[in-house]
Amino acid sequence: MSPLKGAKPIYFGSFIVTPQVFHTTPLTFALVNLKPILPGHVLVSPRRVVPRVTDLTPAETSDLFLTVRRVGRMVERVYGATSLNIAIQDGVHAGQSVPHVHAHIIPRKAADLDHAGGTDAVYDLLDGNEGDLGSAFKNAVPTEEGNQSTEVRNGNAVDSGRRSRFPAVDNDARKPRGEEDMRAEAEILALEMENEPLD
Amino acid sequence: MSPLKGAKPIYFGSFIVTPQVFHTTPLTFALVNLKPILPGHVLVSPRRVVPRVTDLTPAETSDLFLTVRRVGRMVERVYGATSLNIAIQDGVHAGQSVPHVHAHIIPRKAADLDHAGGTDAVYDLLDGNEGDLGSAFKNAVPTEEGNQSTEVRNGNAVDSGRRSRFPAVDNDARKPRGEEDMRAEAEILALEMENEPLD
Repeated sequence: MSPLKGAKPIYFGSFIVTPQVFHTTPLTFALVNLKPILPGHVLVSPRRVVPRVTDLTPAETSDLFLTVRRVGRMVERVYGATSLNIAIQDGVHAGQSVPHVHAHIIPRKAADLDHAGGTDAVYDLLDGNEGDLGSAFKNAVPTEEGNQSTEVRNGNAVDSGRRSRFPAVDNDARKPRGEEDMRAEAEILALEMENEPLD
Repeated sequence: MSPLKGAKPIYFGSFIVTPQVFHTTPLTFALVNLKPILPGHVLVSPRRVVPRVTDLTPAETSDLFLTVRRVGRMVERVYGATSLNIAIQDGVHAGQSVPHVHAHIIPRKAADLDHAGGTDAVYDLLDGNEGDLGSAFKNAVPTEEGNQSTEVRNGNAVDSGRRSRFPAVDNDARKPRGEEDMRAEAEILALEMENEPLD
């Protein structure tokens, strides 16, 4: 059962992501990731599908980042982390793939990416293979890497391309998850949000 | 003349950064960078010196990100950019150097980092040599790279260390700027903020 059973579909860009959503406010939603970079890597977006932060109203901006703060605190606790990377690619020339504002929240702990090159490898992973649902968008808009090997299953992107820039990082090792897997995580996180103080 | 002449000193972590500050609200300030990754790379911080986003009050959180949105729009316009990278290293295991919440805002345009490896090289630059005022903190807290070759001049860090991970990126080419240079940019940006709509 989805935490949001019966609710209207929630859109992330042109994708329906309702089964992945674990938290909503009137203006904002949070969803689990198809290909998390690290455990607990989630996204927070405005309900309104707009591409840029400047397109948000002040009320949407406040609500988005109050939600980022609360969701970040929750995933840090639930996944036993000690820090968070928070990142927004605001526009296509900043690496944005899905033209819908989204903040990445990535729980971090000591030495968690030593195998991939160290603390900062999170950014290579974030951008090397999107880390989110953006591959389908990349498929529609050819990139300079000519990555055309994306297929869409169940409304989510499955990117079979490789990038060669960071040989220490094997993005193909990050298999896209099934919908049931994401739904199960979303249910757990929805319950955990109920334990999270409002302030 | 500093845009904030006569005002109380503003602290970024343990550093006084008043001459670099170009915008303040009661809860937030924005400052120009010692070693900008790209033109217009600025930082936005809460006035209160706290290390983590969760340490902020909801009012501080809203004000910080409303300021990020307005300052981002301003630097995108002034520096002729088309996108923004917005990033927070929230905690030491996420790469935070100065233990004071700060959002990096980096104006982006097409092909601006082709010489350094492409769009995503911004993150290597951000973390490869801090991109902010953090090197002095790194000096105090030895890193796994054993980078101890930092000296402090005028309260700002001058990092003469090298990292070898991304050979396409020569961080040493980014010379730290003088205080007068930063003060001049802060004056220009302070005036530009006056042209920026409140909403």
